Amino acid sequence: MYRTHKCGELCKQHIGQTVTLSGWAQKIRNLGGMTFIDIRDRFGITQLVFNAETNAELCNTAQKIGREFVIRVSGKVAERSSKNHNIFTGEIEIIVETLDILNKSELPPFTIEEETDGGEEIRMKYRYLDLRRNSVQKGLLLRHRMAKEVRNYLDLQGFTEIETPYLIKSTPEGARDFVVPSRMHHGAFYALPQSPQTFKQLLMIAGLDRYYQIVKCFRDEDLRADRQPEFTQIDCEMSFVEPDDVMNTFGGLVKHLFRTILNIELPENIQKMPFSEAMDSYGNDKPDLRFDMKIQNLTAQVQGKEFKVFDEAEYIGGICASGCSEYTRKQLDELTDFVKRPQIGAKGLFYIKCNNDGTFRSSVDKFYSQDDLSKIATEFTAKPGDLILLLSGTKSQTLKALSELRLEMGSRLGLRDSTKFAVLWIVDFPLYENDEETGKLNAMHHPFTSAKKEDIPLLDTAPEKVRANAYDLVINGTEIGGGSIRIHDTEIQRKMFKLLGFTDEQAESQFGFLINAFKYGAPPHGGIAFGFDRWTALFNGSDSIRDVIAFPKNNAGRDIMIDSPAFIDSAQLNELGLKLK
Amino acid sequence: MYRTHKCGELCKQHIGQTVTLSGWAQKIRNLGGMTFIDIRDRFGITQLVFNAETNAELCNTAQKIGREFVIRVSGKVAERSSKNHNIFTGEIEIIVETLDILNKSELPPFTIEEETDGGEEIRMKYRYLDLRRNSVQKGLLLRHRMAKEVRNYLDLQGFTEIETPYLIKSTPEGARDFVVPSRMHHGAFYALPQSPQTFKQLLMIAGLDRYYQIVKCFRDEDLRADRQPEFTQIDCEMSFVEPDDVMNTFGGLVKHLFRTILNIELPENIQKMPFSEAMDSYGNDKPDLRFDMKIQNLTAQVQGKEFKVFDEAEYIGGICASGCSEYTRKQLDELTDFVKRPQIGAKGLFYIKCNNDGTFRSSVDKFYSQDDLSKIATEFTAKPGDLILLLSGTKSQTLKALSELRLEMGSRLGLRDSTKFAVLWIVDFPLYENDEETGKLNAMHHPFTSAKKEDIPLLDTAPEKVRANAYDLVINGTEIGGGSIRIHDTEIQRKMFKLLGFTDEQAESQFGFLINAFKYGAPPHGGIAFGFDRWTALFNGSDSIRDVIAFPKNNAGRDIMIDSPAFIDSAQLNELGLKLK
Repeated sequence: MYRTHKCGELCKQHIGQTVTLSGWAQKIRNLGGMTFIDIRDRFGITQLVFNAETNAELCNTAQKIGREFVIRVSGKVAERSSKNHNIFTGEIEIIVETLDILNKSELPPFTIEEETDGGEEIRMKYRYLDLRRNSVQKGLLLRHRMAKEVRNYLDLQGFTEIETPYLIKSTPEGARDFVVPSRMHHGAFYALPQSPQTFKQLLMIAGLDRYYQIVKCFRDEDLRADRQPEFTQIDCEMSFVEPDDVMNTFGGLVKHLFRTILNIELPENIQKMPFSEAMDSYGNDKPDLRFDMKIQNLTAQVQGKEFKVFDEAEYIGGICASGCSEYTRKQLDELTDFVKRPQIGAKGLFYIKCNNDGTFRSSVDKFYSQDDLSKIATEFTAKPGDLILLLSGTKSQTLKALSELRLEMGSRLGLRDSTKFAVLWIVDFPLYENDEETGKLNAMHHPFTSAKKEDIPLLDTAPEKVRANAYDLVINGTEIGGGSIRIHDTEIQRKMFKLLGFTDEQAESQFGFLINAFKYGAPPHGGIAFGFDRWTALFNGSDSIRDVIAFPKNNAGRDIMIDSPAFIDSAQLNELGLKLK
Repeated sequence: MYRTHKCGELCKQHIGQTVTLSGWAQKIRNLGGMTFIDIRDRFGITQLVFNAETNAELCNTAQKIGREFVIRVSGKVAERSSKNHNIFTGEIEIIVETLDILNKSELPPFTIEEETDGGEEIRMKYRYLDLRRNSVQKGLLLRHRMAKEVRNYLDLQGFTEIETPYLIKSTPEGARDFVVPSRMHHGAFYALPQSPQTFKQLLMIAGLDRYYQIVKCFRDEDLRADRQPEFTQIDCEMSFVEPDDVMNTFGGLVKHLFRTILNIELPENIQKMPFSEAMDSYGNDKPDLRFDMKIQNLTAQVQGKEFKVFDEAEYIGGICASGCSEYTRKQLDELTDFVKRPQIGAKGLFYIKCNNDGTFRSSVDKFYSQDDLSKIATEFTAKPGDLILLLSGTKSQTLKALSELRLEMGSRLGLRDSTKFAVLWIVDFPLYENDEETGKLNAMHHPFTSAKKEDIPLLDTAPEKVRANAYDLVINGTEIGGGSIRIHDTEIQRKMFKLLGFTDEQAESQFGFLINAFKYGAPPHGGIAFGFDRWTALFNGSDSIRDVIAFPKNNAGRDIMIDSPAFIDSAQLNELGLKLK
């Protein structure tokens, strides 16, 4: 028998009992006649004592133990003389009577401590050692609890978890599909799903009514920061629903997870914000509402004052940073550099300081009187001591830059506390967006998204104005989920494909089996998918999703622990009927 | 709003209420002035009534509805005059007041009824319609409930569900790996996991203590009957355990599923049978114990009686089929043909009829006296009326043939009732088996399986006699799960690889990261994996795992619904740096 107890559960009430523990040697201290070893498992740490006077041989063996050796000990639980009140087992220790070294360990390449000396690269190569650290295990345990609560809630709501296939079909537009050559059918390929979208719609057509799945999805993109080629979705679909039914059901899921995991009670109704308001007030369709600092459109107000930069701009807008009027030249220069970075791309930054004495001082004093500046300040309901920051340019670029500046100021002012949460739905998305390169219409979500009933006449006249039955869930400025009510009518689906520039043949070859399925009584249906990695990272207070993935890949899509992807031998290529170019 | 109730929940207590239902038109009957429609969803069927006298227009619309149209109706719940006591809603009907056709349907290619007119092929092509049938949905709902109960039990036992990667590394011996070309690293491939074996061992080395995962696995085999290229495992691993710990924990899981899903209470202790006993008594390492009919070894007893066939055989064995002494010539010929089929490969079949009058009549009367035959009958404790069937040849082939014959007789005698269950563990497997082609030793389970402690000395002297710390769970003659205690000692692992004929380089290149991980304090650990598709099929009373998979592939590994695998365009191949041969 390897253990009677775990390393985190013994306390005063066990004093006098003989127990057996197994685990890893975390820390070894040799104090003359006494040797102390901290034994660790995932449940905690217990102090072991070896006394050279009472058992010299045992103490001798103990002194041979190195860090990360796996040991088994039996002994009596005793009260500690110097207690450690920071840990549950801190009042006791084990007076060891027998000791087995179950396995030795070489010296690990970095210390297995919260404050480790190992850099990212080496910790990834030895991920199985990095995973021994408490904070990394904590992320995986949180992930498990979240998955469990997702299932608890959805089960109660009548959802059935159904596994959809992983070996599916590549579509011509699916350039970001991972493909899998077939050995039995040379030249033919399966593809790994970017999402189970079509299958969940087929399940609704099949009458399964409410489906969900916590499922891996795959996308072969050039990886941006904190993306993974394989990622996990909470994928859901319901029949006979309208947008509010979906948002109520999954608002319930969001509240359930906040309640059971974080012990936070969200308001009964999760706020809904139209896409247009989010863009106008926050420059962004995933606003971080942990702080206000709304963007104000000042275009009409500031133009016509002989200031050429503003007069020639399509749009001038700004934000008001509370209590920043005494920002130094250096601080303002930093902000100017921030907005001029190529990723943001503003040409310059203008400011208005609302001095504590009620006067104003701005970078545009030449063109605007104190009265003009006061009026601008009124727009923001700025108080003395505030700092107004202005940007100008094209509307879309300026809003984007203001959004970044707002987030930067939020961070500087400590308004983006990772233990605070602001949750909202973004609704009334446009159905289409213009592709900036080709000028063509693209589906903003995907080609199965339905239009709002009242906007359907616009499909023929002004499709860019049509709003979709689509909704995104945003938490703290991160899109955690998104979905829509789908088109269930074959005629409207055909029109949608046409507007997106698909020929009948293209639509048929890419979505033929789904279009065909729609002919046999598709119910009204809709759903949502949540990014489970992202959501877990958010609840874990992690910046990176890698913190909540057991074996993540690096930013180049490589698993450096197992050294993958890797070359395969030519026999295997032959069997697949493939040659390297 | 699409519905106030589901189609399976209205009954007498709702009479008089106004309700709204949505669903599919299952059956339309036009009886002069009255039109009846059965509306169906996954929860049940409700009868709708349209009365031409009270609402001619509505009745007119109703008559336009075809099978599988999606409709929404509102109306009053009324008591039926002719009740149907076979269904929950059979006492009421809805007097329809409003009717919307939500979607039309073309005539389905087969009837959506339990007794459908559609063949396997067409039902697979239109799987989304096949899935509308109650019995098919039932399999998926059962699967969901089983997954849920697996998680409930394992969560309570302190297991953490952890997702392991799908894009891993191909190994040279992994000829049955599906591979995934990397677009970012031309010529390099990921592989899809045949199982998460190495990752779950790494999780134990990482100290996660108890891991499980319900996970898709992939194997690119030439498909045998009822295999799928992608299949689902319940994959589990525990640290600091011995074989009995694993069997107790997962015996508990087995009992939990039988109790919660089938309402069957299994005995406290699940029977354990050594591999050697299973082979000797049932000719098979997965005996169907729903019936006894043990194989008896008669070699010593029947040899030396001048019967050359037996005298020259390595092994003679038989079974006793109760109550079959009056089998006709024709029936005996059928059995002879059965054992002579190439898959079974016996040369002939001998029989001894234990006549009701106490005499014996056999196909070997020439060589064996009544007394000889009586003694053989005693071996089987055969009664008058029984039929003894004998086969001879090499030991391994004859046992295999007797196993098949035993199952055949069990089926003929109705002893293999799919509602009865016989559960056992097979233990004490040999660690190695001889490859019949090459004569080399192969790992019977996998190269990480540990040997029984008392057999370790045999590793050097008689490795084929070494027994493994391995166990299989067998239900009704089907292997549902299997696992082992793993090697956690680097030296023993090295010896194991050597015995299996790996060079150090091969071992390093295939399992390098795992061997490396073993150096840093691997705990004793072991685990098990269950075939979830097979287990669900068994509980569902299905012959095929396809019945419990939403979108299965056919025996050629094709999904004929989505037409996959399929050719991809040359641009995509180019991007992957690949050419077809």
